[in-house]
Amino acid sequence: METANLLRQVEFIKEVDKLKYILRKTKLLNSDRNENDAEHSWHLSLMAIVLAEHTNFPVDLLKVIKMLLIHDIVEIDAGDTFIYDTQKSHDNTAEEREAAKRIFGLLPDHQANEMIAIWEEFEARQTNEAKFARAMDRFEPLLQNVSNKGGTWTEFGVNYEQVYTKKQVIQQGSNTIWQYAEELINDSVDKGILKR
Amino acid sequence: METANLLRQVEFIKEVDKLKYILRKTKLLNSDRNENDAEHSWHLSLMAIVLAEHTNFPVDLLKVIKMLLIHDIVEIDAGDTFIYDTQKSHDNTAEEREAAKRIFGLLPDHQANEMIAIWEEFEARQTNEAKFARAMDRFEPLLQNVSNKGGTWTEFGVNYEQVYTKKQVIQQGSNTIWQYAEELINDSVDKGILKR
Repeated sequence: METANLLRQVEFIKEVDKLKYILRKTKLLNSDRNENDAEHSWHLSLMAIVLAEHTNFPVDLLKVIKMLLIHDIVEIDAGDTFIYDTQKSHDNTAEEREAAKRIFGLLPDHQANEMIAIWEEFEARQTNEAKFARAMDRFEPLLQNVSNKGGTWTEFGVNYEQVYTKKQVIQQGSNTIWQYAEELINDSVDKGILKR
Repeated sequence: METANLLRQVEFIKEVDKLKYILRKTKLLNSDRNENDAEHSWHLSLMAIVLAEHTNFPVDLLKVIKMLLIHDIVEIDAGDTFIYDTQKSHDNTAEEREAAKRIFGLLPDHQANEMIAIWEEFEARQTNEAKFARAMDRFEPLLQNVSNKGGTWTEFGVNYEQVYTKKQVIQQGSNTIWQYAEELINDSVDKGILKR
């Protein structure tokens, strides 16, 4: 049984290597190199550890990290969707649900079910853990775009209103981080790297 | 105080972005693209979650993941050292300790101390958490080299004896994973991708 589980787990571990090829729209800090989903997931997980003291409520940090490590895995099949894309909604499309079933389904059943449940919890944004994980997912690209003189905001003509609305999700996870993020957004307008 | 902490944490979060540029010798699965330390750290952390049932002993999984997320951060200053390099020892050199002090030192003091302690625990290989985390760090490149027809073994003329000795560390974390790893190593000799 243990060995049977291990064989399935190794198949999953090999499959998710593909996340390293999924490129996001945002670029690394002070860089024109696109970030990939695997390194993005690493960064968010580490951010959650470092910033945990700022949550609005107690969180199960291990669960937050599990969410962040797996939150983009469905993009191996479904691809990355740009957050400001008005044509295609990012969240929990039929395509993403199929991807979750296929990829997490490589794992032993009890683990597949756990992973799918955690991914769905992240997508549903209702629990404290999902809210804090989401805050990390919105905060990192803000730091990236500010460092890149507007980054994807400039590249894709995204304005203050759109950014403010999307980033406000940070507040649901942490008032302290939101306060800082709000300043960064306002500063960006002042600096001319985010248009009104 | 909270805001003062946040400012230091953000400096750390920005600094560790550089881990995405540190290239390892090993390549992604079935690929000739070098893996970087950030995506490597992501992969190991996820492996630890998925493979936790195979540890030889109970582990604090959150601590294992913290170790794996940060274990290579010192390489931002000290660079990646190839595991089979006989000239330069990888572990806990003066250069790496300086790097830990500088990079983790960006964090608020209590966090800096915690991170340095966790990194040192990983390097010392004595606790259950360090042993299991080490096992992950040895297991991933084995999967990579097998998928790449010998990968770094072929590229750098590493033989069975050297691989066996380095990989045996896996057994200290998990007998089950070691049994599987040992088969992979022996199969590699049979297939001619690892020389005796």
